[in-house]
Amino acid sequence: MTQSCTLAIDAMGGDYGPSVTVPAARKVLQRHPELRLILVGEQAALEAALAGTSEADRRRLTIHPASQIVGMDESPSQALRYKRDSSMRVAINLVKSGEANACVSAGNTGALMATARYVLKTLPGIDRPAICTTIPCRGGRFRMLDLGANVDCTAEHLFQFAVMGAVLVEAAGDSADPRVGLLNLGEEEIKGNDQVKQAAQLLQDSDLQYVGYVEGDNMFRNVADLVVCDGFTGNVALKSSEGVAAMISQYLREEFQRNLLTRMAGLVALPVLRALRRRLDPRHYNGASLLGLRGVVVKSHGGADEVAFEQAIETGRVEAMEAIPTRIDARLGELFARGAVE
Amino acid sequence: MTQSCTLAIDAMGGDYGPSVTVPAARKVLQRHPELRLILVGEQAALEAALAGTSEADRRRLTIHPASQIVGMDESPSQALRYKRDSSMRVAINLVKSGEANACVSAGNTGALMATARYVLKTLPGIDRPAICTTIPCRGGRFRMLDLGANVDCTAEHLFQFAVMGAVLVEAAGDSADPRVGLLNLGEEEIKGNDQVKQAAQLLQDSDLQYVGYVEGDNMFRNVADLVVCDGFTGNVALKSSEGVAAMISQYLREEFQRNLLTRMAGLVALPVLRALRRRLDPRHYNGASLLGLRGVVVKSHGGADEVAFEQAIETGRVEAMEAIPTRIDARLGELFARGAVE
Repeated sequence: MTQSCTLAIDAMGGDYGPSVTVPAARKVLQRHPELRLILVGEQAALEAALAGTSEADRRRLTIHPASQIVGMDESPSQALRYKRDSSMRVAINLVKSGEANACVSAGNTGALMATARYVLKTLPGIDRPAICTTIPCRGGRFRMLDLGANVDCTAEHLFQFAVMGAVLVEAAGDSADPRVGLLNLGEEEIKGNDQVKQAAQLLQDSDLQYVGYVEGDNMFRNVADLVVCDGFTGNVALKSSEGVAAMISQYLREEFQRNLLTRMAGLVALPVLRALRRRLDPRHYNGASLLGLRGVVVKSHGGADEVAFEQAIETGRVEAMEAIPTRIDARLGELFARGAVE
Repeated sequence: MTQSCTLAIDAMGGDYGPSVTVPAARKVLQRHPELRLILVGEQAALEAALAGTSEADRRRLTIHPASQIVGMDESPSQALRYKRDSSMRVAINLVKSGEANACVSAGNTGALMATARYVLKTLPGIDRPAICTTIPCRGGRFRMLDLGANVDCTAEHLFQFAVMGAVLVEAAGDSADPRVGLLNLGEEEIKGNDQVKQAAQLLQDSDLQYVGYVEGDNMFRNVADLVVCDGFTGNVALKSSEGVAAMISQYLREEFQRNLLTRMAGLVALPVLRALRRRLDPRHYNGASLLGLRGVVVKSHGGADEVAFEQAIETGRVEAMEAIPTRIDARLGELFARGAVE
């Protein structure tokens, strides 16, 4: 029997709101007959965006009204205090009440994290939730956390991140025994700051498959399924990578546009360039997980288009089906029982 | 009148030793008639590598013997204690004694930094030397420091890095009034850790052209001439960027190698791909500066080939001609006098 699953979509979030979220939602529905989606936002706007939806699809698409929208630049505290009927908050409330198994939002990260943390609370034993995403690397992909929720982290925080991330990698089917690495500025044991060195000790003593320190360049050589770091470093590493990739893409375009000859070469090379773009397309990796909460919350890039937002919904669906928070909770319970965490 | 300049080359350093360092040295000599080079290392090996050098070039190429070599994996303390006659140490000694205006080494970074610091000492007012390199970005290039010498940094350290880096950017002729940014995980004022926030205050109060927080992706959009960060973050950011660039290059190669058709497309696109490679070639950015010392020390990538090592020597030459340490010292003197630093 297929398990049913309901996702709450913050339909007003992101740079494009319903013009992206609603078509993406309809696409995902068509792939998953067991799925139900609740579109949260301004009723009239959503009704309009849903025009032309088939009867059958419409039965699995509910609109849940919310009168406010959290701005992309709004501060977390502002959003918490003054936007209690925002599409973001209401979508998270639906997870809290059990009406939805996950929430997916392209709204601003700070507000989403603060609201999710306030409404859903963290799991027992988790001091701080972390943001985890999937990144392509040679011959595969890896996950990295934290990506910006926590600027300063203790060794214990890093260890908690490792436990949570490993559960996610396992549940997503990427590895039954994830290779866990700590991001560091060298591979030798003496390298790094105190937090990282102490976290290495905690990981060595755990039953996770700890593969040691991982350097920024080696991450992309498929040496770990999970790369753990503080949110400051993770954010900078992820964005630097994105920045370089964007620069190279632009250079490639510029070089092929340079003159008539290079343009002709570009036409000949088009299938190859398309294949390259597909392999690196960040849209296929969209959807970051807010881990450590008592519920599934997935954050999409604010600038996500339809394809990218579909992927974020898909990430939310998998995490809901796999009951990630329950699995993390169980894993932490085992570690508590064994005295591995305090 | 052309100013004369003498550089001490650690000819044994790096993965390839004299087979790379000596030909690179000869190439650089040919470009600069005022330049003299001292090759430091094993006399016999260097004599052999110099075979066939013209009389005229030979007059500007001295061999200075050194009996030991610092291994690429050797610890800084080991190198300091047991390798007093290493090519690295002797080359730095020549800077200390005034026989050379700069030292260039492809030896291991930790040993080079520790030895340079021990022999040359830091400038007054500088707590810690930092490693600074040049990175290509859209329509230009920027410099970033620290890249790994200091894992934990206070706001004052970050401010000192900014002062030193700005002197380097100015002296290299890249900008008369460098735009200085602080690497952070967001551009809003409330983002970041305490050190970064306090450094922002110090920079705002200074007469440097402070442009605010810079995110990892924006670095590559030419928003700053100098990006300042702690050595942990800088190292991870730089290596992540290198890792992604290498991955994309490999993917591009793979896609063009896929079958006969794509290979033919690759042949047609070859001039374009070569132009792209030239624009991104890391060899043209080789040569990191150890700033904050009482002498010029330039670190080449260990795996540098001839072209890359030439660039590192070139970097050392420019820094020697521009007397970077003296300029940094003068700049710090002004700041002391104005009470801007303690």
